[in-house]
Amino acid sequence: MATKIMTMGEILVEIMAQDVGQSFRQPGVLLGPYASGAPAIFIDQVAKMGVPAGVIGCVGEDDFGHLNAQRLAADGVDVSSIHFLPDATTGSAFVTYRHDGNRDFVFNITNSASARLTLAHVTPEALADCAHFHVMGSSLFSASIVEAMKQAVDVVKRQGGSVSFDPNIRKEMLGSSAMRDALRYFLTRADVFLPSGPELTMLVDAETEAQAIDELLDLGVQAVVIKRGAQGASYADRQQRLDVAPLAVTELDPTGAGDCFGGAFVACRFMGMSAGEALAHANAAGAMAVTRRGPMEGTHSLAQLREVLVQAQAGGAQ
Amino acid sequence: MATKIMTMGEILVEIMAQDVGQSFRQPGVLLGPYASGAPAIFIDQVAKMGVPAGVIGCVGEDDFGHLNAQRLAADGVDVSSIHFLPDATTGSAFVTYRHDGNRDFVFNITNSASARLTLAHVTPEALADCAHFHVMGSSLFSASIVEAMKQAVDVVKRQGGSVSFDPNIRKEMLGSSAMRDALRYFLTRADVFLPSGPELTMLVDAETEAQAIDELLDLGVQAVVIKRGAQGASYADRQQRLDVAPLAVTELDPTGAGDCFGGAFVACRFMGMSAGEALAHANAAGAMAVTRRGPMEGTHSLAQLREVLVQAQAGGAQ
Repeated sequence: MATKIMTMGEILVEIMAQDVGQSFRQPGVLLGPYASGAPAIFIDQVAKMGVPAGVIGCVGEDDFGHLNAQRLAADGVDVSSIHFLPDATTGSAFVTYRHDGNRDFVFNITNSASARLTLAHVTPEALADCAHFHVMGSSLFSASIVEAMKQAVDVVKRQGGSVSFDPNIRKEMLGSSAMRDALRYFLTRADVFLPSGPELTMLVDAETEAQAIDELLDLGVQAVVIKRGAQGASYADRQQRLDVAPLAVTELDPTGAGDCFGGAFVACRFMGMSAGEALAHANAAGAMAVTRRGPMEGTHSLAQLREVLVQAQAGGAQ
Repeated sequence: MATKIMTMGEILVEIMAQDVGQSFRQPGVLLGPYASGAPAIFIDQVAKMGVPAGVIGCVGEDDFGHLNAQRLAADGVDVSSIHFLPDATTGSAFVTYRHDGNRDFVFNITNSASARLTLAHVTPEALADCAHFHVMGSSLFSASIVEAMKQAVDVVKRQGGSVSFDPNIRKEMLGSSAMRDALRYFLTRADVFLPSGPELTMLVDAETEAQAIDELLDLGVQAVVIKRGAQGASYADRQQRLDVAPLAVTELDPTGAGDCFGGAFVACRFMGMSAGEALAHANAAGAMAVTRRGPMEGTHSLAQLREVLVQAQAGGAQ
């Protein structure tokens, strides 16, 4: 019986510059390696909610690959479909924060083990227990991965499962019409769509939020969940429209917050919570994620998120 | 007129674990990125000796590539044949020291920009000024690079230049008969052969040092320079055999010491120093290299090496 939330895609390490304004053109103090990769963070948050979870992906046969597998397994993720490739290196992202709050990166992803994901990894066995599959747009960086992801979505839908889709778009992606087609493919198969702010209108014709929601629901999406970062979040389906105010937290590192939000929302709905309850927990998961340095360090358990919501309530919300 | 020492191969960044015994399977404090890559360190040492120097290689269009190019250019290396590839990432090596003094690595080299080096980069223009070419065995990690390196050696020899060869062998390399053939190819075309300790006998039939030197000289090698790390170094040609005692230094980081030794030796001979003088300077360069943390941080100028030799003399040498 299918009982698991699953995802597929890049599993990386992140290395952070210690200081704001630090350049990667000269030596300095770095912190890491931290477990990372948008789908990996998402699924770690799902597992922390106590929901059965699994991930399909490729890492190198190296310490960085083992770091991720050990971390995910410790948090309850089924890592049996993480493949260790002897002739590839685990992907990496070096990140440094500028004084203006923006980030600079040195990525090794498209030539890393993460890029070796193919149709061959999407086996019936790997997806046998999958009742819900999450597509992370950042993972779709090659034609071969897009093909594999389409196959995973089709298999899960055929076995009666549902699908969520976080576009998680890098701007460069939209330049390619093949990539835009791929993103539209997943949008039209998604039961839950989880865009961040402006991503809401990027894949539709509509230009306003209300029109975009209508267009998405007409496309077959059951629920639209809008992540607004420090401005909170919203939920919309045919019956209702819900908004949740941001929780007041001190931001230390925003990386991974959207992935934690998504993992918490999908897990809460999977457990049978109402859309409003799921939105509140997801909002708390996103808020708590930014209080920790390290992309996957900010995942929290259901009990921790409940405590956050109780405290916020006691403090008069906000 | 050909007036330059050149080399070709991997240009990398190194990231070091701060503490001895630190694992890459959990987050910690790291130091870097440091300019690195054996041929890059070699040629940086050559330039620091005041000899015209150039390097052919590929890096990514990223901060790590620019860090290397800026560093090499600042030290006087002609970097006009360093190619910045937009779809590749600059190679990297993460290194951590074990308590027993050995090192553990996570490499991204064979899938990095360094691996994109091909025959197309070995143009007559790139080698026009080259009077001496240095082959670093560590660079020979793909058939396409071997082909490019053979071409470079042939071009330089055709224009009357000389060749040096540092086998710098990783044990894995000797498993492949194609790689062994490639190493033998460069050995038989080398004027100067610079093995480290046991590498002396790895590519010949002889098993003792004396026999190996005879066999190498019979093969056409003009001079054999044996790097012995903390045991000093030796030089042998048809006329003479020289030994130099190690300089007493406190070792902080041995990475790159052999490359500095080689760069200093080749540069000194290129400037017209005797074999004995070159050996003394190279011995000093290797010794000084280990006193600095960071693979390329230990290159020194001719004036600095002279000062080291004067001080050692004054101290009664060893």
